[in-house]
Amino acid sequence: MHTRHKVVIIGGGFAGVYTARALSERMDQTIDIEMICDRNYFVYQPLLPEVAAGTINSQDAVTPLRRLLPRVRVRLAEVIGVDLVRKQVQILQGRRRIPQQIHYEHVVLASGQVTDLSRFPGFSDHSLTMKDLSDAYRLRNQIIRCLELADVTEFPELKQQALTFVVAGGGFSGVETMGELVEMVHRTRKLYPGIGEADVRFVLVQRGDRILPEMSAKLSRYALQNLTRRGVEVKCNTALKQASASAVITDQGEVIRTSTLITTIGNGPAPFIRQLNLPLERGKIKVDGTLVVEGFCDVWALGDIARVPLADGALAPPTAQYAMREAYCVAENILKCMRGESSQPFAYKPRGMLASLGNYAGVAQLYGLTLTGLPAWLIWRGFYISMVPGISTRLRISLNWFFDYFMPRSTVYLEQGRTPACRYRYYAPGEEVFASDQLLDGLYIVMQGRLKMTGTRSDGEPFERVIEQGDHWGEWILTHSGVTTGRVEALEPTKVLVLAREDFFRLREALPGFANYFSSLDPGRYSKAVMVDRAEGYAD
Amino acid sequence: MHTRHKVVIIGGGFAGVYTARALSERMDQTIDIEMICDRNYFVYQPLLPEVAAGTINSQDAVTPLRRLLPRVRVRLAEVIGVDLVRKQVQILQGRRRIPQQIHYEHVVLASGQVTDLSRFPGFSDHSLTMKDLSDAYRLRNQIIRCLELADVTEFPELKQQALTFVVAGGGFSGVETMGELVEMVHRTRKLYPGIGEADVRFVLVQRGDRILPEMSAKLSRYALQNLTRRGVEVKCNTALKQASASAVITDQGEVIRTSTLITTIGNGPAPFIRQLNLPLERGKIKVDGTLVVEGFCDVWALGDIARVPLADGALAPPTAQYAMREAYCVAENILKCMRGESSQPFAYKPRGMLASLGNYAGVAQLYGLTLTGLPAWLIWRGFYISMVPGISTRLRISLNWFFDYFMPRSTVYLEQGRTPACRYRYYAPGEEVFASDQLLDGLYIVMQGRLKMTGTRSDGEPFERVIEQGDHWGEWILTHSGVTTGRVEALEPTKVLVLAREDFFRLREALPGFANYFSSLDPGRYSKAVMVDRAEGYAD
Repeated sequence: MHTRHKVVIIGGGFAGVYTARALSERMDQTIDIEMICDRNYFVYQPLLPEVAAGTINSQDAVTPLRRLLPRVRVRLAEVIGVDLVRKQVQILQGRRRIPQQIHYEHVVLASGQVTDLSRFPGFSDHSLTMKDLSDAYRLRNQIIRCLELADVTEFPELKQQALTFVVAGGGFSGVETMGELVEMVHRTRKLYPGIGEADVRFVLVQRGDRILPEMSAKLSRYALQNLTRRGVEVKCNTALKQASASAVITDQGEVIRTSTLITTIGNGPAPFIRQLNLPLERGKIKVDGTLVVEGFCDVWALGDIARVPLADGALAPPTAQYAMREAYCVAENILKCMRGESSQPFAYKPRGMLASLGNYAGVAQLYGLTLTGLPAWLIWRGFYISMVPGISTRLRISLNWFFDYFMPRSTVYLEQGRTPACRYRYYAPGEEVFASDQLLDGLYIVMQGRLKMTGTRSDGEPFERVIEQGDHWGEWILTHSGVTTGRVEALEPTKVLVLAREDFFRLREALPGFANYFSSLDPGRYSKAVMVDRAEGYAD
Repeated sequence: MHTRHKVVIIGGGFAGVYTARALSERMDQTIDIEMICDRNYFVYQPLLPEVAAGTINSQDAVTPLRRLLPRVRVRLAEVIGVDLVRKQVQILQGRRRIPQQIHYEHVVLASGQVTDLSRFPGFSDHSLTMKDLSDAYRLRNQIIRCLELADVTEFPELKQQALTFVVAGGGFSGVETMGELVEMVHRTRKLYPGIGEADVRFVLVQRGDRILPEMSAKLSRYALQNLTRRGVEVKCNTALKQASASAVITDQGEVIRTSTLITTIGNGPAPFIRQLNLPLERGKIKVDGTLVVEGFCDVWALGDIARVPLADGALAPPTAQYAMREAYCVAENILKCMRGESSQPFAYKPRGMLASLGNYAGVAQLYGLTLTGLPAWLIWRGFYISMVPGISTRLRISLNWFFDYFMPRSTVYLEQGRTPACRYRYYAPGEEVFASDQLLDGLYIVMQGRLKMTGTRSDGEPFERVIEQGDHWGEWILTHSGVTTGRVEALEPTKVLVLAREDFFRLREALPGFANYFSSLDPGRYSKAVMVDRAEGYAD
């Protein structure tokens, strides 16, 4: 009688799925494999730009993990820690987020990197990322919302802002996102009679001196020419310094007014990984050549989360190709370990690199060959289909591609439901927070910086009020007409917490302490800025 | 020279789309048609249960309004009022919700009915509706989340609750939703090894004495037998009295523990319609035989929003068939009105009625014939395809249906992002609000009723604390370990406002008045219920 072994895999991306699959294909009946993942499906990240652009239906781009891994226990849960001594993964499960422990004999850390925008002020509140299916979904809705508004608005500056799309990062993800974005906007633009080709602006910002730096200089130049010809402004040697509610600012001081910033930069390990005190280097877990974490014999790491040394001293790049090969190696080594054999080192020679530029063009380096345009793009599609696991997903994606060629793109805008109650917003000096005669969306609490309100009193006198840190603006308007009676702008770089209108009222009704605070405020603060009650203001 | 006429249509459902289409097909160049709608796509509501069940991809079930109506100006905006004297529609537009006025010469009210659950306590916070694409989407995610949790949870009562699905309403929408739900759960259940057929419970609650009351008694009986055979408990002559976070209560006093309540009942006019002071009867706008609103010559109403009298004295039922015919009549009458001719009365003889029961069965009454089972279901599909506007949508839906027959259903769960900060929750007497050792999700403020907390102090003594109206629970836990140390239950019917954990912290950081309120609370309130600081509690 053997005792049953238990392997727990954290993460359901390429690294996790292929480790689980390799283990379950080779396992005898004495191993339990459990995968813990905060989504119940596998998503191939390079396809996300196509989902955002509507080339592929969101449901078709992904495969449920349970279908991919029939002999693996799949648990939809959030990992909050790993007890490396007691050999337990700590999770939160269900809507009530009940804490639980999962025992392991071997644990495989394959949760990838998460977006970490803490170094970029305003980015986490004013930008979209491209990591997950819901990101693609959100970007898609954002683009359509911008087109809808730009088509009918009467304000030229609002139209221009809505039709400016900025992508931060010129690597694979940034370039592919921009390529798809341009194609989508120009294909669907025809449905919006108020939007001309010249109204739309695309800006790609890259910190380094060329885009696609992983590829050869020649291909990088081809990609640049392709995007430029299609109207994209590519700004190399440029970084974004700040994002705010209506603009981004570059380190050259240029202010680009936009409603849509997509970031493909800023990656780091998940918070629970940081807390484990594992050996990290540049945010990646240090593993030895056999992919076991330094100092352990039962903790494995691979994929984007790991710093994988290659035989030639270089590091394995964070690509799906490598993750897949690393997965086979980890699975093999875990099995060897269980049999008491010694581990094998990781070795792999990659086949090549590919990027799509959208609009039936791509760039490719394959077995030393260099390809551009349609051939590269066709190889890209063929390669991606071969990488996606699951026959039914492959079939679905192929059909989507087929129909996309002759069917119009969908421009359905799906409301995301109520926005979260408390959002941070960042404003640059001089940036308008609110114009006059607008419906106020919440209470504005200043956390850093200062706001200034200016307007005209009912007797014709101008007034102004400065809102300092810790002070707030909007409670009087919310409880009276709901419509702004003056203009509010930021005096300096300002961070605001906005408590949504509806939540302000809910809290005021439920919590006496909250209501008392506002009714106890000095009424003098309003007399300085006398406002006309315009309860029926905008019906006039 | 003619002056240009302007027709504004509010609403993009069957009534609105077919009015716009009929007008634009017959119009000369002197009419501007504008449609104002709070979604930018047309959705055929009877298909929503299939979207929720994954038979049809959400994007494929709908058609962008701009594509359907190329000669109509489509505006994505929220209508907040109509000035019937100045002839202006008042709207809010864009993310900043800027108020604007749109002038009209004729206005067509075709915005349908909205869900109005104010008469059913707890329903608006604890139930899902089936009106819109996002509703179908939400239901789909809810079902998958329940299956995921039920498969892995260690708590039998949580599993049972997650696998109980309740539908309120036995009309077309309720029956079709239940039919699709049963089929979906049983088809996808195989991916969840921990869920057996007997674990799943379906309950359909109908106030009247039979389901599908619009159809003949024979068909209604057939539908009942079909659902019952497939394991659905159909409770006729029963109404739901209350919904709470984990259960529904019937007027017979039965408590059904469930995480999923779908309501297809409770319809009413949109708030802006109520404010117009138009003649209403049972929540519907009174129109004369020509579909003009009583007392007006330039305000038209049709579809679900209108009380349309037929020649025989009966009222037009709120179905797509009638809405379509009413639309032709309204368009014709507006054109006649512009030419100075007199209006024609509405007249239509319906072709029949159809309902799908899912799983390849249906019921149909057509031209006096009665059909059941597969033939009725095939006619239902054919009929629906014929009703959906737009060739490309028809093709897409047909392909979805085709593939559904031999491809597995997708069980992808797409996280909805952060939950809104302030949610209301309802609890029945004795219902558990929180058990011990759970991660607390927010501050619980009692708005009505009372909560009781019980636990054991570190010295072994039991303690309890009652939380009265206006008081709250959780601030101590949130700012210490985050984990509950006792059990909280409702003492009577209780309404709570939950301020999400993250928002509690954000507000506390930003707003000094909020932080001061909590720090000024009497510490004695906690000493009565001494709690052990378990900062690392759940790592033990």
